[in-house]
Amino acid sequence: MSSYEVRPIGRVQSTLKKRKNAPRQPDENAPSAWLLFEPEVRGALRDVRPGDQMDLLTWLHEARRETLVVRPRRDPSRSETGVFSTRSPDRPNPIGVHRVVITAVEDLRVQVQGLEAIDGTPILDLKERLAKRPEDL
Amino acid sequence: MSSYEVRPIGRVQSTLKKRKNAPRQPDENAPSAWLLFEPEVRGALRDVRPGDQMDLLTWLHEARRETLVVRPRRDPSRSETGVFSTRSPDRPNPIGVHRVVITAVEDLRVQVQGLEAIDGTPILDLKERLAKRPEDL
Repeated sequence: MSSYEVRPIGRVQSTLKKRKNAPRQPDENAPSAWLLFEPEVRGALRDVRPGDQMDLLTWLHEARRETLVVRPRRDPSRSETGVFSTRSPDRPNPIGVHRVVITAVEDLRVQVQGLEAIDGTPILDLKERLAKRPEDL
Repeated sequence: MSSYEVRPIGRVQSTLKKRKNAPRQPDENAPSAWLLFEPEVRGALRDVRPGDQMDLLTWLHEARRETLVVRPRRDPSRSETGVFSTRSPDRPNPIGVHRVVITAVEDLRVQVQGLEAIDGTPILDLKERLAKRPEDL
């Protein structure tokens, strides 16, 4: 099958500098971070407001794409698990999906709460979160 | 910034054949569909089970990547909106995020409920859905 090219539209600016220090999940004391967007996507950002709940998509650039099986949370006492049943960054297409809440917007800089991605992580997309429905609970 | 290559790991098999007939959101009568995975990712699939709630990532191959502003739901009576504040497939990196529930697994074929992606859509990833937390409600 043919492949496709993703083009980063910005980068994460965060106090998290190394993958080994990053929280595994966003509820584990992940810090606030800034999303720095490229000028070319200014039009796409025009309706983003503080309080918006969105899905942020990133390219997990330090991931190992050949990994198919992991020990969750790198704990050797747990059994091996297929990566599709985990949120490990190591997977064939290492795209991160992060649920974020927008806390500030300053032109091309957007602040979000609780982001576990490390500093410099390329941003691929930001999108409205799906409407709340009973099956999402 | 440098770009990255995404490599499809499978395709959607669906009765939805054309984008113009596809529901705009998965709660609008989207049909069940099959995900047909490539043999190379068999190991990553090994723990996927019926009942699992997962995020499916696709490449929306018919999207227009140069689009930054849309009229939501293609309704000309509504005002223009930056694409990041929508779930339009037309956006700089047209990656679809679909919340799915697994209904059957047959080796490399996985059936899901309520998928709005059209037949032939390339699959990029399948991942465990984030744990339920109050802020997801």
